[in-house]
Amino acid sequence: MDQSDPAFARHRGGKMAIAATIPLTTRDDLSLAYTPGVARVCEAIAAEPALAEDYTWVSHTVAVVTDGSAVLGLGNIGPRAAMPVMEGKAVLFKQFGGVDAVPICLGTQDADEIVAAVTALAPSFGGINLEDISAPRCFEIERRLDEALPIPVFHDDQHGTAIVVLAALRNAATLLNRKLGDLRVAVSGAGAAGVAVTKMLVAGGVDPAEVVVCDSRGIIHRGRPDLTPTKAELAELTNGDGRTGGIVEALRGADVLIGVSGGEIPEEAVAGMAPGGAIFALANPTPEVHPEIAARYAAVVATGRSDYPNQINNVLAFPGVFKGALAARAVRITEGMKVAAADAIAAVAGEGGEGAGHLRADAIMPSPLDPRVAPAVAEAVAEAARRDGVARA
Amino acid sequence: MDQSDPAFARHRGGKMAIAATIPLTTRDDLSLAYTPGVARVCEAIAAEPALAEDYTWVSHTVAVVTDGSAVLGLGNIGPRAAMPVMEGKAVLFKQFGGVDAVPICLGTQDADEIVAAVTALAPSFGGINLEDISAPRCFEIERRLDEALPIPVFHDDQHGTAIVVLAALRNAATLLNRKLGDLRVAVSGAGAAGVAVTKMLVAGGVDPAEVVVCDSRGIIHRGRPDLTPTKAELAELTNGDGRTGGIVEALRGADVLIGVSGGEIPEEAVAGMAPGGAIFALANPTPEVHPEIAARYAAVVATGRSDYPNQINNVLAFPGVFKGALAARAVRITEGMKVAAADAIAAVAGEGGEGAGHLRADAIMPSPLDPRVAPAVAEAVAEAARRDGVARA
Repeated sequence: MDQSDPAFARHRGGKMAIAATIPLTTRDDLSLAYTPGVARVCEAIAAEPALAEDYTWVSHTVAVVTDGSAVLGLGNIGPRAAMPVMEGKAVLFKQFGGVDAVPICLGTQDADEIVAAVTALAPSFGGINLEDISAPRCFEIERRLDEALPIPVFHDDQHGTAIVVLAALRNAATLLNRKLGDLRVAVSGAGAAGVAVTKMLVAGGVDPAEVVVCDSRGIIHRGRPDLTPTKAELAELTNGDGRTGGIVEALRGADVLIGVSGGEIPEEAVAGMAPGGAIFALANPTPEVHPEIAARYAAVVATGRSDYPNQINNVLAFPGVFKGALAARAVRITEGMKVAAADAIAAVAGEGGEGAGHLRADAIMPSPLDPRVAPAVAEAVAEAARRDGVARA
Repeated sequence: MDQSDPAFARHRGGKMAIAATIPLTTRDDLSLAYTPGVARVCEAIAAEPALAEDYTWVSHTVAVVTDGSAVLGLGNIGPRAAMPVMEGKAVLFKQFGGVDAVPICLGTQDADEIVAAVTALAPSFGGINLEDISAPRCFEIERRLDEALPIPVFHDDQHGTAIVVLAALRNAATLLNRKLGDLRVAVSGAGAAGVAVTKMLVAGGVDPAEVVVCDSRGIIHRGRPDLTPTKAELAELTNGDGRTGGIVEALRGADVLIGVSGGEIPEEAVAGMAPGGAIFALANPTPEVHPEIAARYAAVVATGRSDYPNQINNVLAFPGVFKGALAARAVRITEGMKVAAADAIAAVAGEGGEGAGHLRADAIMPSPLDPRVAPAVAEAVAEAARRDGVARA
């Protein structure tokens, strides 16, 4: 540990606190906020449960839940070491979405135990943001919780990433004067992010037959005997030509490369792409393709890093997604809500400083600090929730 | 629901929020609080787990956990209706103890599921405050969690109440010029509070043979065939004379009555007490003995209500108990720590405005708003933790 590293100074004592939003300085304050006054509020909720949304903090809270099994690029570091990330997420939720988020780092990596624990604590929260849970358990855990709980469940590593990638691709396509349905896309990585990105791009208009997904063993196709259920589903959905081989074959003639693997992609593979396309190399801190190399082969280059142009950052999505879902009192988060979030993010970038239609190749995404993003995403998500029939307000 | 009731206005939107304790307005802020800076903090904790206490909020947090089965005097109203009480508790933790508390209302009342859920979420917190869980499940749940977890577990309805009752009895005895070991005590109620109060009074110096405990069926004695394990333990510990009968027999000649039952105690029973003693009638909002009736038979009268003198209120205990336990990084809360907390509360009341030795019959307890209490309790509890060998700092 490097004591001179300013990150440690920023983290001392943690990054968050609880604050009372009511006064607590007189006997009257105590008797209204606590006994005997609180008993009347409890009785009213017991008689009419929906009042809990008006008279508790539940309607504006989210649990940020991890088991510490896939934290950032650090891997399985466990719940205690994962806490700084979950606190960071929580304060970003507050800063950008006005959502009160509580980090919950679970001391188990057993899917059944995780589902049981989150189900048990769910009445305390308005939504569940799953975070940094490794594939393939994350797919099962999210599905089971989504089915079991009457509140939104959202695995950010999957869907947050997928939303910002779709937003970036929308604006890249606009800039390149291409339609999403005409693009050939290679996705490198078939973990939580790769799977969700693929599905989201298809939901957003990309032709699934024109998508090829690679995992560490190469292109995912129907002939592979080693596929998990999730990858088998991808094999059915994508790769209409039945391509086989590795990343070189996957990239041959591709218009778009989306790197969500963390593995380096060699320049000779990238060189086989169709000219004038887009490369999103999202691994952090080391992109799959160095941005300077990527720029030799693609017209639009984006990364997950803040020190290059076009940062594709989940913080553009999750605060607004939950702000909107909670505002609509949505019972879950639909594909339509995620596509609406992506479109809203893309639209803010398009507005730039100079009005719509002024996208630039080095500014396809809004800044993560842009205060317009979360409200725009929230409004679009709430509208989509109502359209999709999952809203209760 | 009475819209003009000011309690509802105070509860609208809930009573608490999350606050970031670090700046989040520049790109540098983001890259220190979140990626990439946060990764270095995570790695340091993964290499040396104890650093989690310095670099996360865990060391100053408590989960306030309920299943909604015994909320105030309202009974089994469930987790959603319990939330206003848990939020109230959380803001009192912050206001008086500087402890960041998160309300967790569980959607299960099964003891095994509660133990599993709390065990799973425990790495996220520095302590567990159990709240409003009905007897006898609360005894088993607390015991199992206390054994399983390396952090303090404290059922406030038991031990918070027991601490403030011992504090009150200390000062009542001083005022009456009596020793605790010479007092005959009747406890009305053998639920969570009654059991813990009895044990705490014995730990504080009351002679167990001189204590008689009543439940709804009368005096608890060894001859009763209907006792739960906890009550059988009480029968062994207390009632040295082997008294039988009801509250009339329990109170005959008693110096002290402690009501923690909620059931009314008839005046003719109270009339049988030895003259010049103490009556603590703690049921809220209706004390077991009306304070005006109690004053006819006892020299010191206390209740749980804020509108009579001598309010015996748990808020005098729990913020300081956890503040001290967390400061000492105690692995659990011992009897010695609880007795130390009671003594500290009693001492603050004794200091009054006029120095030690100036207790008054209508001022045996500090005000719940007295800012001296929680720091004094915290210091005493931390010292006791070190003395008892359960401190790690």
